[in-house]
Formats: sequence, structure tokens, C-alpha cells
Amino acid sequence: MDQDEQAIRAVVATWMDATAAGDVSRVLELMADDVVYLGPGRPPMRGKAEFAAAMRSMEGRVESAADIQEVRVSGDWAYCWNQLTVTIRPAAGGSAHRLSGPTLSIFRRNPGGAWVIARDANMITPVPPGK
Amino acid sequence: MDQDEQAIRAVVATWMDATAAGDVSRVLELMADDVVYLGPGRPPMRGKAEFAAAMRSMEGRVESAADIQEVRVSGDWAYCWNQLTVTIRPAAGGSAHRLSGPTLSIFRRNPGGAWVIARDANMITPVPPGK
Repeated sequence: MDQDEQAIRAVVATWMDATAAGDVSRVLELMADDVVYLGPGRPPMRGKAEFAAAMRSMEGRVESAADIQEVRVSGDWAYCWNQLTVTIRPAAGGSAHRLSGPTLSIFRRNPGGAWVIARDANMITPVPPGK
Repeated sequence: MDQDEQAIRAVVATWMDATAAGDVSRVLELMADDVVYLGPGRPPMRGKAEFAAAMRSMEGRVESAADIQEVRVSGDWAYCWNQLTVTIRPAAGGSAHRLSGPTLSIFRRNPGGAWVIARDANMITPVPPGK
């Protein structure tokens, strides 16, 4: 595995850790200023400010597990296909709920050399209880 | 717009035309042998044979309209973000139904020079009647 692929996998791991910790500013460092988040049934979400507002509105702890299927780098761009499972544990207690499914993300190498998420297609859906 | 971006937009246009015509073999020419189709709530669909079976099982005419938001090329790879609307007209008659939403596709330049779809994230969802 080459250095760029390792760096991109590290971004995914850091993302999940910072999300579980509720560390919005750390997560924002991992995305491009012009980031776009795509998903089914909702308009595209653009830029860090929209993302931060959405992340702050989440109630509870968001734990993620990534099963990375593929990372491919071409110059200063890369894509990553991930099979993602997210477990949301309500702050007020009660049962956790899970979502799972694929994500397809475009990463860009910043002028400083760091890889950041630039485009993200999120296709996770609720997992029925007991599965 | 450069030549590669034009070529990729032409693949999208040809795809939609061939799909509306039910021309499975023409659509298959536009994808990589190891293509993967990702979507919410279903397992990844891999390879041309699975795609062809799914396309042949569609009943009715499938008309698509692409509102391409972005095409970006890096070497022999590219991505395309598209806001897609699909209208399915049942072969047996009756009212058409529509789906819309974003797609994020990874294109690869084949050794022969042609751009083909390699990975595709499809996030279209049903449009409520009357919208």
C-alpha cells in the first residue's frame, strides 16, 4: 500500500474518531472548503458551515466502522469506496440505532500535501433492529 | 471545456439514449468490465453481466435527463457529479413514475482511449406524484 493510500485511510480513521468524540473542528480540517455531500432524498450539502451545523444538530454519540473496499489515487485526486456502519447512541439513553451502506468519496490533495474530502456520496440506510 | 470532459459528457448522453432505446449491448460498451454500481439499501452490483440482467428486467421505457454539475479529470481517471431525473413509462401503459437525485460516477480511460464508467453511486429516489 503506497503512502497516499495510507494517508487517505488515516483521514477516514481520524474522521471516525473525531466524529465519535463530537470534535467538529477536527472533522472540518479533513474536508475541502468547497466540499459537497450528496445523499438520497435531500439536496446537496455544500461547504464546511453547512456540515458543521448538521454535525452540531446530531444528538448522541456517532460511532462508525469503515470497511474500506478500495482506494485509488491519480495525481492529486483519489476516490475511496467504503462500506460504512454507523451506530448512533442517543444522549438521552435508550436503544442505539444503526445505519449501513456504501459511501463513495472523492479526495483531493491540498497544496500543503494533506488529503481532504472534496465530494462524498453517502448511501447508508437504517438497519432493521435485530440485524 | 476540454476534450476529455466533452468525451465524458458524450458517454453520459449516449448512455441515456441507449437506455431509452433498451439497447443493452450499447450501454455495456460504456462501462468497465469490473464496474461497480452502488446504491442505498442494496448490495453492490458488480460487473457487466449483473448490470445487463438488471437492465433486461426493467419493464417499460426508461427516459433520463442529466443535469451535469461537474466533471473533473485527473490523468486516466475522472469523476462526474450529475443531478439525474429518470422517468419510467410502463410498457403496459398507465402513469409514468419519476425518480430524481444525485449520482457520483468514477470514469476511467481505457487503454484504447475511450472513457468508461468504473464506479457509480446512484442516489435517485421516487418523486412524489404531482411534483
